[in-house]
Amino acid sequence: MTRVEKINKKVNEIDADCFVSFDKSDMLYFTQIYEDGILLIIEHTTYIFANKLSYDSIVNQKPQASVILANQGIKSLQELLIENKIHSIALDLKNTTAFQYETLKKNFEIKDATDFSKQIRMIKEQSEINAIKRAAIVARNAFTKVYPMIKIGVSEKEIKDELDYQMTKFGAQKSAFETIVASGINTSYPHHSPTDKKIEDGDFLMIDFGACVDGYNSDCTYTFLIGNRTDEERNFYNELFYTQTFTREFIAPNRTHAKDIDKRARDELAKYGLDKYFIHLTGHGVGLDIHELPYIDSSSETLIVPNMVFTIEPGIYIPGKYGVRIEQTILIKENDVEILGYAPFMEII
Amino acid sequence: MTRVEKINKKVNEIDADCFVSFDKSDMLYFTQIYEDGILLIIEHTTYIFANKLSYDSIVNQKPQASVILANQGIKSLQELLIENKIHSIALDLKNTTAFQYETLKKNFEIKDATDFSKQIRMIKEQSEINAIKRAAIVARNAFTKVYPMIKIGVSEKEIKDELDYQMTKFGAQKSAFETIVASGINTSYPHHSPTDKKIEDGDFLMIDFGACVDGYNSDCTYTFLIGNRTDEERNFYNELFYTQTFTREFIAPNRTHAKDIDKRARDELAKYGLDKYFIHLTGHGVGLDIHELPYIDSSSETLIVPNMVFTIEPGIYIPGKYGVRIEQTILIKENDVEILGYAPFMEII
Repeated sequence: MTRVEKINKKVNEIDADCFVSFDKSDMLYFTQIYEDGILLIIEHTTYIFANKLSYDSIVNQKPQASVILANQGIKSLQELLIENKIHSIALDLKNTTAFQYETLKKNFEIKDATDFSKQIRMIKEQSEINAIKRAAIVARNAFTKVYPMIKIGVSEKEIKDELDYQMTKFGAQKSAFETIVASGINTSYPHHSPTDKKIEDGDFLMIDFGACVDGYNSDCTYTFLIGNRTDEERNFYNELFYTQTFTREFIAPNRTHAKDIDKRARDELAKYGLDKYFIHLTGHGVGLDIHELPYIDSSSETLIVPNMVFTIEPGIYIPGKYGVRIEQTILIKENDVEILGYAPFMEII
Repeated sequence: MTRVEKINKKVNEIDADCFVSFDKSDMLYFTQIYEDGILLIIEHTTYIFANKLSYDSIVNQKPQASVILANQGIKSLQELLIENKIHSIALDLKNTTAFQYETLKKNFEIKDATDFSKQIRMIKEQSEINAIKRAAIVARNAFTKVYPMIKIGVSEKEIKDELDYQMTKFGAQKSAFETIVASGINTSYPHHSPTDKKIEDGDFLMIDFGACVDGYNSDCTYTFLIGNRTDEERNFYNELFYTQTFTREFIAPNRTHAKDIDKRARDELAKYGLDKYFIHLTGHGVGLDIHELPYIDSSSETLIVPNMVFTIEPGIYIPGKYGVRIEQTILIKENDVEILGYAPFMEII
C-alpha cells in the first residue's frame, strides 16, 4: 500500500470523508514537501494549501499533489471542502490548535484521528531507514571530531556549539533537537540546557544529541566519567550500562511488546536499587519527529516488529548529585536489532 | 503593574477565574523559567506544573511560583483547579492543542484569551529591550566575522552553517530561527532553505538571520548584489532600499498606526510598479517569540508606542528571477526609532 492508501484505510475505518493535517512532518511524509501549509487528502487526491510565501517554492518542487494558493489559510481549505461536499474531517487533535479545531467544527463534523499518521510512520520504509542511518552516521562522525576537545576546563556550551557545528559540516541540515551537554550536578537534570559551567575532575558528562538529514533524525546519549572517580560512581555507571545493554538484547522482533522492554529495564535497575531514580520512559520512536511512536513505556501494548526505529535510553538521576543516561537508536530487523551510528567510545576520559 | 497584574486585569475583563498557558514563551515571561510545563495564574499566585523530568531543575532555579510535580500533566492541573473551585479558564486558543482544549472543556468553561499575553508582551520592559539589543549585537558581530567568506563559489549552506556557529561563539544560546541563505533564483522564494547551490557572479544573495540571547531574539535580513550586475538589478535593489528606509523614517511614535506603516511601504513600491511583488506583511514584533505582536499589516489598527520592538522588512520577489528583502529590527523610543544591531554593509560584494 502507498502512504496515501494507508491513511485512507484508517480514515475509512472511522467513516470520515477526508484527512486534514497541520503537521509539517505529515506534509513531508505524504508530499515530500517541507514547507508551511495545510495538508488535505480526499480519497486518492492530495492537496497542499500554501500561502503566497511558500506557493512558488512548493510548485517549483513539483510535488505529487495539487498545490492551492490559499491566501485565506483555513478559509480557503473550508471552501474546497464545501465544494467537494465533505461532511466529516479526520483530524489529529494533538497536532491541531484549539483555534483551528473550533474554526473547522463550525462547518464540519470532526472525527478523532489522533496518532493515525504516526501509527503509519511508526513502520519505516527502506528509504526512511537509510535517511535515519545517514543522520546517525553524521552525528557519530561529528562526535569523533569533537571528542579530542572534551577535557577538564572546557565548558558545556563550548562542546554543544562545536558539536552542532560539526554536524552541519558533516552534512546535517540542522541538529535534531537542542543538544544537551551536562556536567557534574547538571547531569541530575535529564533535560539540562548547556551553560558556561566548565568540566571538572570527577564530573559525569552527559551529551545527548542527534542530526537531521533529509528530514530524518538520529538520537543518542553518551555519558562519560571525567578524571578521578569513586568506586560508587564507577559502579553506578556500570549498572546503567548493563541495563541499557540487557534491555536492548532482550528485544525479540515480532514477539516482544513495548511495555515488556520497559519492564526489563526497570527490573534490571531494581536489582541495584536504582529503579526509583529512573524517572522517564525507556525509549521513543525516531523519524521525521524526534519523539514519535512507538513509545517504550509501561502502558504501551505495541508489538515490536521489523522496520521500527526507536531509542533505548535508561537513565538514573540522583537528586543533588549526578545522573547517567545511555541512549542508542536501534532498528528492528527480521531477527535481530541493529544499533544505528554505533560509537565505540562510551566510557572514561 | 507587574506582569501578573497585567494578565489578571485582562482575565478579569472576560470574567474568567484563572489563566492557563501551554506556551513556553509565556512560562518564561511570567516565571523566568524556560522548561516544559503548564503555567497557571490564579489571582496573585503563579503555578508551574512540571513533570518528573523538569521538576528538580525548575525548583533549583527558585522561581517565584509554586512548582507542582504533575506526573499526570493536564490531569494534575484539573485536580488543583477543582480544589480551588475554578469554573472558567482564560485560554489562548492559538497556543492550545485541540486535545488540551477538549480535555479542559469537560470540566470548565473556556473563555477565549487568544493573544492576551502577547498583547502584554508587545510593550517591552527595559530588561527585555537590553536582551534584544544583546541578541542583535551578537548577530551583527557574527556576521562581521562571516562577511569575508562571502564570495563566488561558496555555497548557501556553508554560509548558513558558519553564521549559526559564529552566533553561538559570540554568545547566542542558539539561532533565533532557521537561518535563510538564498542566492540567484532562490531569492525569489521568501523562505528558502539553504542548499548546496554555490554563489555565482551576478546573483542576488539574501541572508535572513537572528540570534537568541537570554530567551530574546533578533531578526534582520541583508541582501547583496554579487559581482557584475545589470542596471535593472541595481535599480531594483535601490528601489527596495528606499522603500525600507522611507517606511522606517515614516514612523512617528504615539501617532502612527501599524496599518499606515504597511501602507507607506506599499505606496512607495507602487511608485516603481513593484507593489504586486510584495507578498508578505511589512513587519512583525520580535521578543521571546520570533514572530509576535505587533503585526505590521494592512489590517492592524495598533497604535505604535514606545518600547515596541518590531521589524521593517519590505521584500519583492519576481517569480522565476530573483528577490530582494531588507529587514531591520527597530525599537520605538519616545520621539524616534532606534535600529537594533545596525550593520553598515548592505550592498555589493
